[in-house]
Amino acid sequence: MSVGTISKVLVANRGEIAVRVLRTCAELGIETVAVYSSADADSAAVRMADQAYRIGPGPAKRSYLHIPAIIEAARATGADAIHPGYGFLSENPDFAEVCEAEGFVFVGAPATVMADLGDKSTARTLMAAAGLPLLPGSRDPLDSADEAAALAEDIGYPVIVKAVAGGGGRGMRVVRESGDFAAAWRETRANAAAVFGDDRLYVERYLDSARHVEVQILADHHGTVRHHGARDCSLQRRHQKLVEESPAPGLSEEVRDAICAAAVRGAAAVGYVGAGTFEFLLDPLGRFYFMEVNCRLQVEHPVTEMVTGTDLVAEQLRIAAGLPLTLSPDLTPRGVAIECRINAEDPTREFAPAPGTLTECAFPGGPFVRVDTHVTPGYTIPPHYDSLLAKIIVWAPDRPAAIARMRRALTETRISGANIATTTEFLHDILDHPRFVTADHDTALIGAITEPARIGS
Amino acid sequence: MSVGTISKVLVANRGEIAVRVLRTCAELGIETVAVYSSADADSAAVRMADQAYRIGPGPAKRSYLHIPAIIEAARATGADAIHPGYGFLSENPDFAEVCEAEGFVFVGAPATVMADLGDKSTARTLMAAAGLPLLPGSRDPLDSADEAAALAEDIGYPVIVKAVAGGGGRGMRVVRESGDFAAAWRETRANAAAVFGDDRLYVERYLDSARHVEVQILADHHGTVRHHGARDCSLQRRHQKLVEESPAPGLSEEVRDAICAAAVRGAAAVGYVGAGTFEFLLDPLGRFYFMEVNCRLQVEHPVTEMVTGTDLVAEQLRIAAGLPLTLSPDLTPRGVAIECRINAEDPTREFAPAPGTLTECAFPGGPFVRVDTHVTPGYTIPPHYDSLLAKIIVWAPDRPAAIARMRRALTETRISGANIATTTEFLHDILDHPRFVTADHDTALIGAITEPARIGS
Repeated sequence: MSVGTISKVLVANRGEIAVRVLRTCAELGIETVAVYSSADADSAAVRMADQAYRIGPGPAKRSYLHIPAIIEAARATGADAIHPGYGFLSENPDFAEVCEAEGFVFVGAPATVMADLGDKSTARTLMAAAGLPLLPGSRDPLDSADEAAALAEDIGYPVIVKAVAGGGGRGMRVVRESGDFAAAWRETRANAAAVFGDDRLYVERYLDSARHVEVQILADHHGTVRHHGARDCSLQRRHQKLVEESPAPGLSEEVRDAICAAAVRGAAAVGYVGAGTFEFLLDPLGRFYFMEVNCRLQVEHPVTEMVTGTDLVAEQLRIAAGLPLTLSPDLTPRGVAIECRINAEDPTREFAPAPGTLTECAFPGGPFVRVDTHVTPGYTIPPHYDSLLAKIIVWAPDRPAAIARMRRALTETRISGANIATTTEFLHDILDHPRFVTADHDTALIGAITEPARIGS
Repeated sequence: MSVGTISKVLVANRGEIAVRVLRTCAELGIETVAVYSSADADSAAVRMADQAYRIGPGPAKRSYLHIPAIIEAARATGADAIHPGYGFLSENPDFAEVCEAEGFVFVGAPATVMADLGDKSTARTLMAAAGLPLLPGSRDPLDSADEAAALAEDIGYPVIVKAVAGGGGRGMRVVRESGDFAAAWRETRANAAAVFGDDRLYVERYLDSARHVEVQILADHHGTVRHHGARDCSLQRRHQKLVEESPAPGLSEEVRDAICAAAVRGAAAVGYVGAGTFEFLLDPLGRFYFMEVNCRLQVEHPVTEMVTGTDLVAEQLRIAAGLPLTLSPDLTPRGVAIECRINAEDPTREFAPAPGTLTECAFPGGPFVRVDTHVTPGYTIPPHYDSLLAKIIVWAPDRPAAIARMRRALTETRISGANIATTTEFLHDILDHPRFVTADHDTALIGAITEPARIGS
């Protein structure tokens, strides 16, 4: 069997997202190849795929980020398409280009679109041209700290200094007063150079009390662009999401329609193809501002799947194969879905990674609970990668019922082992927080819980 | 917290259904008591409940069927309601009566209604009066084999001889020719006396090529009766269901509406309260015939939950507490849900129970997969009870996608151990059967697969 031209997919990723993609391929009757580093030789993806191919040692640079090794694996196994998952090479336009040049279908956005949207400065310019509202800030990368400081005075503090090549919450820093600007600029620049190999920065007004609202887009090669509703991902610790939900709560129908329409407009304007996410900040007055586009599947995509009934990975594959989007008029969003990320981190030690071997590993089940994970009892968390162990997703007809269901699901979640710490208990605290319960939360809430001393600083 | 008057529920059951009920109680903030036999001391229900109370030794007669022990547990733990699950005491009107007399809310149908519908002869009379179509057969229990044989001649072979006190697929026997009638009558009668303590029998026309279609009913104390759509449970081996789905496939809208309306009419006619299932046989011409009412939650209730978004256990508790049904107009059925029962039985040895200790025990996850189970790695299946290990339930927008998803989910299901056998591979065979794939199956299909020699006999 196959989906259009695609009959064998190589999954260029690891962990839960590799398992996630393999599952949909199996359902579609598509053959699968898992690639793995030496650190992941015993992984769930390796066990589940039809074939597995070792691409290098543990460090990602020499395996999951190593383009020649992945292309070699695709060639050796006869794959005809490559799904990049999220992270690693998923938003790397060079990788997309090499895949296509070598004759493999890249399951993602076109390389040129990805390059434009990956450059946060170009992305802002393109979206402004498409009529999307932006926060006051620099259109072009800023050449010097002086120029940047002058602009910061113009737009008013607080501001956020961001790497042009950043995204996904990395490479950014909030500055609250002019005296701190020069140091922040210097540090962010050095960091951007080190992490992204690109030290260009830009400056934007920073909203202290805002929601992170993002819109799931699907666009095919035939000019159809559809949104799949909005997600709220305001619960972040240092710009890393911990709890996500769909639909975004507390939005008027007017605002929700406007923000979804803006995302569709933006996607159409750049000729977007594939699954993508338009991220916005929403201020307390209901004004929203474009932040960035993630040209890939998001970690939090399951909440959209649970309320729309859509398999987003299946749609990605259909789109990549040149087929039209599945448009199911009766699959309009219903109910509320919430996702919690279980990370191997110690909340009592500033969320330091806490890897080790899992002696106990039990996940929840029963009505309206979904678990996406790659870990099983006895699993040893390798030190090389991110700390995501599992995503617990629940659905319910309304938000209070979804929160109650998530509390129940987290109670059933038992992960332990020598030196292992997880975010499970911390997630309980978030779910119980009155501001979350009343949907009166914003991006500052988790900071207020974890770092109360910094508030107002 | 509580639901109406109910703040502490004792679950008078075991296995996956005890876990199922405990989960909803936890979400509703209701305290829970698990009762257990000595054979279940280490069970999941015992671990999950707020309190656990031992009610006797392994054999069900001395524990889960022992009314005084359960009442004592309810009294000792201060429970205010008792949920019977399915099987065991769930359809025992005496138990319902004792619960109420002792001051406990019985989460189920009123004892009188249960008594009437539990007597299959009375049930047929009541439903005929309510205008539901019945298969030709005896209204009243038959006094003698001669009288029964004469009636069988009248209505024409094949006929089915059923115990008045039977139900749930037990206590029945198909007779294909008059020469076999006397022996079948004698054996069914002896069996009914032994199993149900009631040797009354009746006779009905038997349909060789029929579907088992059943309608989920919810009715509250305020006169509201609603159906929650139809399930197809035609895939049965010797009247025990193996695969169930909702909606029932291959029905015209007209037939589906008519069968659901008949169930609502029947429920209203007898003053039904609670969750219940009206079972029908549907012949190839779309004519349907009332079979029986199950006055309890069904094993297969999750498929209805998956397509309607309704938590049926939560509704049972609301109804029992005197609250009105939750009526969500936007939660109309969507998509298709299928359930497969994983039993510890050996299909290569006539489905003989194959208990033992599970060394490997992995269940599927990911998009639109639900697992209801009480077993974990290391679990030892006690010899005293039924062989159900887990229910795998999937949802998809359409039936082909749901079947593909179930195939994937079964592939991820790994249960093994010394002497352990399960139905997992057999379920794969059913899913692959052309007559199931095209929804051209009936109650004879599994017999045709497992006992081909008997076909036409």
